[in-house]
Amino acid sequence: MSIAGNVGLGDLPRICPLISRRVQASSDSTETRVVQAGPVRFGGARPVVIAGPCTVESREQTLAVARAVKAAGAEMLRGGAFKPRTSPHDFQGLGIEGLHILSEARRETGLPIVTEVMDPRLVETVAEYADMLQIGSRNMQNYPLLVEAGKSGKPILLKRGMAASLCEWLGAAEYIAKEGNLEIVLCERGIKAFSAGEYSRNLLDLSVIPAVMEETFLPVIVDPSHSTGVSNMVERASCAAIAFGSHGLLIEVACDHDGAQRPICDAAQAIGPATLCNILRFIDSRMESRILRKAHAV
Amino acid sequence: MSIAGNVGLGDLPRICPLISRRVQASSDSTETRVVQAGPVRFGGARPVVIAGPCTVESREQTLAVARAVKAAGAEMLRGGAFKPRTSPHDFQGLGIEGLHILSEARRETGLPIVTEVMDPRLVETVAEYADMLQIGSRNMQNYPLLVEAGKSGKPILLKRGMAASLCEWLGAAEYIAKEGNLEIVLCERGIKAFSAGEYSRNLLDLSVIPAVMEETFLPVIVDPSHSTGVSNMVERASCAAIAFGSHGLLIEVACDHDGAQRPICDAAQAIGPATLCNILRFIDSRMESRILRKAHAV
Amino acid sequence: MSIAGNVGLGDLPRICPLISRRVQASSDSTETRVVQAGPVRFGGARPVVIAGPCTVESREQTLAVARAVKAAGAEMLRGGAFKPRTSPHDFQGLGIEGLHILSEARRETGLPIVTEVMDPRLVETVAEYADMLQIGSRNMQNYPLLVEAGKSGKPILLKRGMAASLCEWLGAAEYIAKEGNLEIVLCERGIKAFSAGEYSRNLLDLSVIPAVMEETFLPVIVDPSHSTGVSNMVERASCAAIAFGSHGLLIEVACDHDGAQRPICDAAQAIGPATLCNILRFIDSRMESRILRKAHAV
Amino acid sequence: MSIAGNVGLGDLPRICPLISRRVQASSDSTETRVVQAGPVRFGGARPVVIAGPCTVESREQTLAVARAVKAAGAEMLRGGAFKPRTSPHDFQGLGIEGLHILSEARRETGLPIVTEVMDPRLVETVAEYADMLQIGSRNMQNYPLLVEAGKSGKPILLKRGMAASLCEWLGAAEYIAKEGNLEIVLCERGIKAFSAGEYSRNLLDLSVIPAVMEETFLPVIVDPSHSTGVSNMVERASCAAIAFGSHGLLIEVACDHDGAQRPICDAAQAIGPATLCNILRFIDSRMESRILRKAHAV
Repeated sequence: MSIAGNVGLGDLPRICPLISRRVQASSDSTETRVVQAGPVRFGGARPVVIAGPCTVESREQTLAVARAVKAAGAEMLRGGAFKPRTSPHDFQGLGIEGLHILSEARRETGLPIVTEVMDPRLVETVAEYADMLQIGSRNMQNYPLLVEAGKSGKPILLKRGMAASLCEWLGAAEYIAKEGNLEIVLCERGIKAFSAGEYSRNLLDLSVIPAVMEETFLPVIVDPSHSTGVSNMVERASCAAIAFGSHGLLIEVACDHDGAQRPICDAAQAIGPATLCNILRFIDSRMESRILRKAHAV
Repeated sequence: MSIAGNVGLGDLPRICPLISRRVQASSDSTETRVVQAGPVRFGGARPVVIAGPCTVESREQTLAVARAVKAAGAEMLRGGAFKPRTSPHDFQGLGIEGLHILSEARRETGLPIVTEVMDPRLVETVAEYADMLQIGSRNMQNYPLLVEAGKSGKPILLKRGMAASLCEWLGAAEYIAKEGNLEIVLCERGIKAFSAGEYSRNLLDLSVIPAVMEETFLPVIVDPSHSTGVSNMVERASCAAIAFGSHGLLIEVACDHDGAQRPICDAAQAIGPATLCNILRFIDSRMESRILRKAHAV
Repeated sequence: MSIAGNVGLGDLPRICPLISRRVQASSDSTETRVVQAGPVRFGGARPVVIAGPCTVESREQTLAVARAVKAAGAEMLRGGAFKPRTSPHDFQGLGIEGLHILSEARRETGLPIVTEVMDPRLVETVAEYADMLQIGSRNMQNYPLLVEAGKSGKPILLKRGMAASLCEWLGAAEYIAKEGNLEIVLCERGIKAFSAGEYSRNLLDLSVIPAVMEETFLPVIVDPSHSTGVSNMVERASCAAIAFGSHGLLIEVACDHDGAQRPICDAAQAIGPATLCNILRFIDSRMESRILRKAHAV
Repeated sequence: MSIAGNVGLGDLPRICPLISRRVQASSDSTETRVVQAGPVRFGGARPVVIAGPCTVESREQTLAVARAVKAAGAEMLRGGAFKPRTSPHDFQGLGIEGLHILSEARRETGLPIVTEVMDPRLVETVAEYADMLQIGSRNMQNYPLLVEAGKSGKPILLKRGMAASLCEWLGAAEYIAKEGNLEIVLCERGIKAFSAGEYSRNLLDLSVIPAVMEETFLPVIVDPSHSTGVSNMVERASCAAIAFGSHGLLIEVACDHDGAQRPICDAAQAIGPATLCNILRFIDSRMESRILRKAHAV
């Protein structure tokens, strides 16, 4: 019995030679390629925390959250201007206006911004505003979009598809790499499983992190917000992701602000700034203990 | 504990009012909307069989398969000119040249054609050649593509995503409907499950057929080739799909032809013309016994 | 990276040599071993229909259902005396009293009975009453129970575990075979998948049927009731299972009876006797058309 | 459309009132019940580390591993005397002889032992030797076994089934509780998902930990060995589990010993004593930083 389409990790050198650790001689080692988005370095010694609202819903809300995540110590701002929604009748984001608001938030806080692009015809436009382009889960295998993202010259945050195997995910990254763009950061965000919906939104799959690191030199981060879908799991999931070796976190944050109201999208998974502080303290303490261990070793 | 993003069938009237049976008064009944692609009628009394090569690989191969499926009794021709592949280094289809070959096959056989489009910028071009546009599994939630497909005025074959819930699938169809295009046929093609890869490519989910029919008036067909990925399961899967109430089948066929060679894509799941004949005979015999039962009833 | 516990179909000759088609010379062919339970033959030309209540809840209910399924044409009676329930506070079945009621139903209708046994200490007792012992999904890998079932000398109906791979399922059957008992009928009953609970209880996996037949000579049947969990899907699922090559069906039936009340267990998936008749007529018509085809061929 | 068997967390007060936090007035708080196995306390301030060989394969091997895990700082010894194996032809454990060897290891090291029991007829015997009884994943819904375990008076380690929902898992625990035994520790060990087998054995589901804690007062630990199936993921998975709030770890360890040989079972997932030391150091450092935080707070 022969099954069409069956591939395994052994096929990766053929599927994605440009990003395969086994193929690229320079990456025989266990080193990670450092990907830069403005001043932010993914894959370096310290995990990167990206935080911000799910969606840019208004100027007030976005600036309030941006200030709060900056104060908490996040290094980069996230926020959706173009939002993929299950229903076409749901709020689809503010579009270009959302990009303007994000730019203003960057000016004020100094945080570089990452935001999603869904349409290959808009890659150039979004790239004018953003420091890093996000390809969302629904579009992980939207190949024309990946090609445009590759051509944009911007660093790309490539989320894992909801049911993507590791081979499919790295194959998607190869589409970007083939356009000459190796500035790619992978992002695990939970997968579909039988248990999804009972106590969490998706199933956070941390084991994929060391598997990614074994197969490619690209950095990999974790989105604890979409993978759990439950705000009071986000801190634990964040710390666990760091303990599992993640190069960073992508976190949704909501906060009170002038004219405050609950966010329209995914309110149930957003954390407040205080919780974000706890996560950053956890990272600090791990960095310190590493330095201490090294000092001891000397 | 509140989980972000949790929706169920009860949310469908909000998610997809335009295609929801419960919302649309004219569809209180159990009737299916008939969707036409050229002379072919989806959702009528007789299930529609679409057959053809996975990919248009050459003029000879495509014409040979087209003649064979016509002879076997298929009503419509499938074939990929633009192929989404896991690796960017794999054959991506013949593109426009493939569309020309499909047109020639239509001229010769009289079969209308359905072919995939992946890029919103190419919808207009593909729509010039095709009688029906296919949106593939990887692009089920590629919303800019769905919007362009909706605007094209062509009937759309919308495949289910590899891990799409029924709500997500019907939400995707609503994006097409919102552009004023209700000429939509849904296509189940197997989903991801723990067992995938052991003895079948994906997990054929026939139970979704009556669930689709309960929630919407759009016709729904089944792709037995991708759902099993094993050629000697395709006949059984086809008959089972018909027995489960499917409005049609989308089947990959390969055959010997001048300059014959095994197909490049997914050879392990293609059936030969003789097997296609068996499937069409199964449909014939069911049609006959229905007519007999009705005659008896009178 | 080496993963513990990874096995595939290629390991079956080692995992289950006694039931592996590839190992057993006498089964090089595609023939199925006929397993008999009283006068009933599984694996013969005609699919076997087993029907009856989910649970033996009372004498009246059981006799009423037994008469109805006999009248509809079922060949064997099912009914649970010992019921595995998610909560220990739920009704656990009538136990020995239930076995007495089943015996009475057999005396009256002439139908042989299959009933579940969960406890290795009760195998001997249940075997005194039953014509066939059922091992339920929850106990597919309850090895001491399988060993006792093997020793009982009775034919065994072995349901697939809720997340069992084909290798695990056939490995479980081998525990029975190792005790010298090859009278085993396998039963697919739906597996867990991300979609479970949205529109069906479990995910009916019909593709496993030809895979079972390729790997072993044991007959395999389908339980359309537990796999869908929705009564108005059961007829379609039954016909599809037969079309996919299943050697039989195991169906839950409920009916009005003296002192009638809705069944306590799983009422939502039980069909009425009229629907059972439809299923048996579908089998009849397939048998007839086969005979006609053979006659034509001569 | 009504689906049989659909339950959710809202049904837990009915399914498992004895262990439901919402039902038991004394556990309105967020406190965990402390479960003791000999001197070991599950659910206290410090996570418990259980370590040892997958299977008791010989006296030498077991004593060597026991000494090594004691030296590394583990508090409890694990090891299988009765092993559930996919094939009946595979090594099934040393049985009673294995229990004797475990007893000797306890005498020498002082570590209490936990070992699996699969057969209700052997619960009494195993309980004579073990300080804690393990119910394995395959037997999570083996209700007669759970009842005997409940009656044994011993603390029980109840592993989650390979595809068990949280409701099914807590329902299983309730079978033990109903016999008057609340000395139950739950153990997450990875679940089945589409990705299983590609880069990990099962899918480690850490999000279930806070969900367990919200629904019951019973402690919950994590088995990083079976959930990943890859030895070089075990340290990361262990640290992540602790960061996620786990009350402990159950880890497979192998080591060189007199007459050394690779373990027969699951060698690919066993770690060495040095890695176990790293895990214990991680726990130490977390305990210290907590104490420091509290001191600061004062």
